[in-house]
Amino acid sequence: MRLTLLINCQDTSGIIAEVTNFFHKRNGNIVYIDQYVDTENGTFFMRLENEFSSEFDIDKLRLDFEKSIAQTYKMDWKLFAKERLLKMAIFVSKYDHCLYDILGRYKAGELNIEIPFIISNHNNLAPIAKAFDIPFYHIPVTKDTKIEAEEKQLSLLKEFEIDFIVLARYMQIISDKLIAEYPNNIINIHHSFLPAFAGAKPYHSAYKRGVKIIGATCHYVTAELDAGPIIEQDIARISHSNSIQDLILKGRDLEKIVFARGIKLHIQRKTMVFNNKTIIFN
Amino acid sequence: MRLTLLINCQDTSGIIAEVTNFFHKRNGNIVYIDQYVDTENGTFFMRLENEFSSEFDIDKLRLDFEKSIAQTYKMDWKLFAKERLLKMAIFVSKYDHCLYDILGRYKAGELNIEIPFIISNHNNLAPIAKAFDIPFYHIPVTKDTKIEAEEKQLSLLKEFEIDFIVLARYMQIISDKLIAEYPNNIINIHHSFLPAFAGAKPYHSAYKRGVKIIGATCHYVTAELDAGPIIEQDIARISHSNSIQDLILKGRDLEKIVFARGIKLHIQRKTMVFNNKTIIFN
Amino acid sequence: MRLTLLINCQDTSGIIAEVTNFFHKRNGNIVYIDQYVDTENGTFFMRLENEFSSEFDIDKLRLDFEKSIAQTYKMDWKLFAKERLLKMAIFVSKYDHCLYDILGRYKAGELNIEIPFIISNHNNLAPIAKAFDIPFYHIPVTKDTKIEAEEKQLSLLKEFEIDFIVLARYMQIISDKLIAEYPNNIINIHHSFLPAFAGAKPYHSAYKRGVKIIGATCHYVTAELDAGPIIEQDIARISHSNSIQDLILKGRDLEKIVFARGIKLHIQRKTMVFNNKTIIFN
Amino acid sequence: MRLTLLINCQDTSGIIAEVTNFFHKRNGNIVYIDQYVDTENGTFFMRLENEFSSEFDIDKLRLDFEKSIAQTYKMDWKLFAKERLLKMAIFVSKYDHCLYDILGRYKAGELNIEIPFIISNHNNLAPIAKAFDIPFYHIPVTKDTKIEAEEKQLSLLKEFEIDFIVLARYMQIISDKLIAEYPNNIINIHHSFLPAFAGAKPYHSAYKRGVKIIGATCHYVTAELDAGPIIEQDIARISHSNSIQDLILKGRDLEKIVFARGIKLHIQRKTMVFNNKTIIFN
Repeated sequence: MRLTLLINCQDTSGIIAEVTNFFHKRNGNIVYIDQYVDTENGTFFMRLENEFSSEFDIDKLRLDFEKSIAQTYKMDWKLFAKERLLKMAIFVSKYDHCLYDILGRYKAGELNIEIPFIISNHNNLAPIAKAFDIPFYHIPVTKDTKIEAEEKQLSLLKEFEIDFIVLARYMQIISDKLIAEYPNNIINIHHSFLPAFAGAKPYHSAYKRGVKIIGATCHYVTAELDAGPIIEQDIARISHSNSIQDLILKGRDLEKIVFARGIKLHIQRKTMVFNNKTIIFN
Repeated sequence: MRLTLLINCQDTSGIIAEVTNFFHKRNGNIVYIDQYVDTENGTFFMRLENEFSSEFDIDKLRLDFEKSIAQTYKMDWKLFAKERLLKMAIFVSKYDHCLYDILGRYKAGELNIEIPFIISNHNNLAPIAKAFDIPFYHIPVTKDTKIEAEEKQLSLLKEFEIDFIVLARYMQIISDKLIAEYPNNIINIHHSFLPAFAGAKPYHSAYKRGVKIIGATCHYVTAELDAGPIIEQDIARISHSNSIQDLILKGRDLEKIVFARGIKLHIQRKTMVFNNKTIIFN
Repeated sequence: MRLTLLINCQDTSGIIAEVTNFFHKRNGNIVYIDQYVDTENGTFFMRLENEFSSEFDIDKLRLDFEKSIAQTYKMDWKLFAKERLLKMAIFVSKYDHCLYDILGRYKAGELNIEIPFIISNHNNLAPIAKAFDIPFYHIPVTKDTKIEAEEKQLSLLKEFEIDFIVLARYMQIISDKLIAEYPNNIINIHHSFLPAFAGAKPYHSAYKRGVKIIGATCHYVTAELDAGPIIEQDIARISHSNSIQDLILKGRDLEKIVFARGIKLHIQRKTMVFNNKTIIFN
Repeated sequence: MRLTLLINCQDTSGIIAEVTNFFHKRNGNIVYIDQYVDTENGTFFMRLENEFSSEFDIDKLRLDFEKSIAQTYKMDWKLFAKERLLKMAIFVSKYDHCLYDILGRYKAGELNIEIPFIISNHNNLAPIAKAFDIPFYHIPVTKDTKIEAEEKQLSLLKEFEIDFIVLARYMQIISDKLIAEYPNNIINIHHSFLPAFAGAKPYHSAYKRGVKIIGATCHYVTAELDAGPIIEQDIARISHSNSIQDLILKGRDLEKIVFARGIKLHIQRKTMVFNNKTIIFN
């Protein structure tokens, strides 16, 4: 059995020794450790993967850890057991490239998750869902139906015990309520190298400014638009000869790749959020 | 003899044929042609390199071109003859890495120019100028001496017939007067991927926002700070574990490379400015 | 109507003027010109896009061009009219990621072609073909059936008037006969930065050598394995901590992107082959 | 005081706990830990930085560590104290760009080392050494003087207690004897993405093959030419229009950057060699 531990707390001497001892005494073999100290804030971060040759009571282990270590150091911590696959919901609107990419990766065995359903405010992509054999829920969002639509979304998310949500170019603002239900569990792909060109139509703005690179940013969604913790970014070179249409087309590949990398880091529990920034473990 | 022609005008049919014929009839061999149409604005751009086996009167050619073609198409055009090396002035403050890089390239024969002098508002880098055998002028800039300092700069620039200026991390605002004297001939290196993190301390802002890439932007200086036409940009990957100091250090290499690329494009007459954007010919 | 002209011939003075005049006189508007001289071999290359406001007899134009220009300069030339979509056949074996990627792009409207069918030596990917609604032909290849299989392939290619073939991780050697039928029209994706790690299992070799980058190469297939003209290459950073499995997974994204870029360049008639190298027009 | 520990040994349970405890008990604060298991070979690697608030007897600590831990696990280990700056010798021939770059970085305070001298088989770069105020030894190497030259080199290296050597485009084969004296302490920059284009004139070979990327590789020198453990690699995009001269020029920037990165990793004790591959700690 494999357990993944994520920790952050105030930095002090001896944490690593104490934590590694804790698992060593319980016959855990540490197969992976990555640690980082934010010296500016004096905060300690660690990710640990432990392998145990036999099954045992995880809840008891959690209790032990809380009492013997976590309380002492006032840790913010999470312990994940690879008991089951994470459940990921996909939100889309009309753009299909990210959806094709995620579903292609999913079918190719690249993403170790379940995808219980796709939600969209439009019906356009229903055939893709069908081709990949994933349930598709069409929940239109208008000014008048916004709250009702959100209720439907939440009810589906709960019914299927969704762990996290990916916004595959979902062109709607996510409500604070939904964000509060899934803190650091809603992943968006934005088509610019944030903080440049936040908001709508970034490719148009990039074209107008005459930049020589375009980018894409995968980030956790927070209440403030396009200002959440950045998980991953990348860029592509462009030139004066590229039209806005060219940027949109080139940007697609960026969006797909950056989004997929961000989603994978999340699935592997390699992200930790602190002060609106991410720590990305190797 | 080699002539380089840069053109822009309203797009219409037949320009390429007419221009290429013009040089063909005068026994010029077109060794290079690059053309681009900005379809949004309906503007035509072209860069042409012509080789002539014998010397002749360039001023007469300029007159011919103006009368027979340029007036017809209402062209904005420039014809450069490789008669002499361009003269480049370097402005610096205290940071030395860009200065070392430019001078290293210059001495290694990479930049086909003359460097008549270095101007600085501080005395710190005088030893480097001396080691590389370039005259160094210390012109302090304070609130009170600003105008006087500018006059000294201008007088030196004129005396040495400087063609263009590079700001190698020169930490002063360039006055509108100087900009007006050298339109699209003052090149700055800014240490961020503009338009993100314009202004002071971009590495500090990048650190605070938690971006996963940092960048550098080489651009022509205009009256609006960090908003001039972008010549070249590039980025480097960073991670949560990089301190501000790390960003500054990583950024140095970016700044050097992006700056050098921009300067070279300018020297080779491969840049053209239109609507606050650059056309970069191959 | 838009015509695309590709030329190469011995370099000499006046070609550009003569060719641009030819189209200008016929009321063609040159919307794009890209030219390059290989000074080592003294060879001239040019790509021209002409727009004509009215329809006319292309065959007559071809004849005119041949007589009035091409013969004089002993040109190797091709003139393409955008009359119809190119027909692309896909060959696959068992790997599905490149297939998913191509078909996703195709359905998303990114590739302006027809895909009459997919051929595979295995049956595994038939369901994907079905999901995307593309005919799938299972043609097993064994030592004994090799020649027969090839005949079946050729007969399908002819029946459907296939213009070019893409090998989406097709794990079979292409016969000289097939290559001869489709010179510079069979596109392969190889999972290394060629010429490093040609042949089988490049990721295993890369792992063993301890390289810090892996790559992918899109190239035209020639008789010599993995030695054909390179259309496009790119790389990704890896580290000591990446297992062979990691390389294979990271490599997938590279393969998909580099393959797609190469295919698009081919579709847009932006490639020209000379001396086993490609000229890639902008 | 800060100590850096590098370890490798057969992988087994409990190593991390035992090592971290060892330092914890001695009042060391682990400020950095990076660990990696090569599962293929079952080998464990770890790098640890410990901070101690007071001075103490390092030799005693070394003995303790050897007896209480290293022997048990049959570790290959090194413990570095930041007592003094490393001493780096530079070998050059005629190319100056890497030399300018290293010396520029050195003077800018980027490399935390001493450079006691530069050795060259030619006299050309003596003025650069003088400008940067570094002793320069001209030791010509011919067929007849090879052994004698090597003796002179070795004698200088010993006299100045050189820790490691960098070959800044030194165009001579390093003898087995010198390699044996400085195992994994001679750093070379090769101007290709190895293993492609090993040996002489890689840019010429790259041009001939028509690759779309060129590269540079920083590696430790071993007896087999260009086959030593790779520390760092990077690439730059090129096109058909680049001449061999262009490749050489573009490659310079690559060489400088990749070389500098490799040298820094070595200085920071972040490299470990195993099975002719490097482990690069973060």
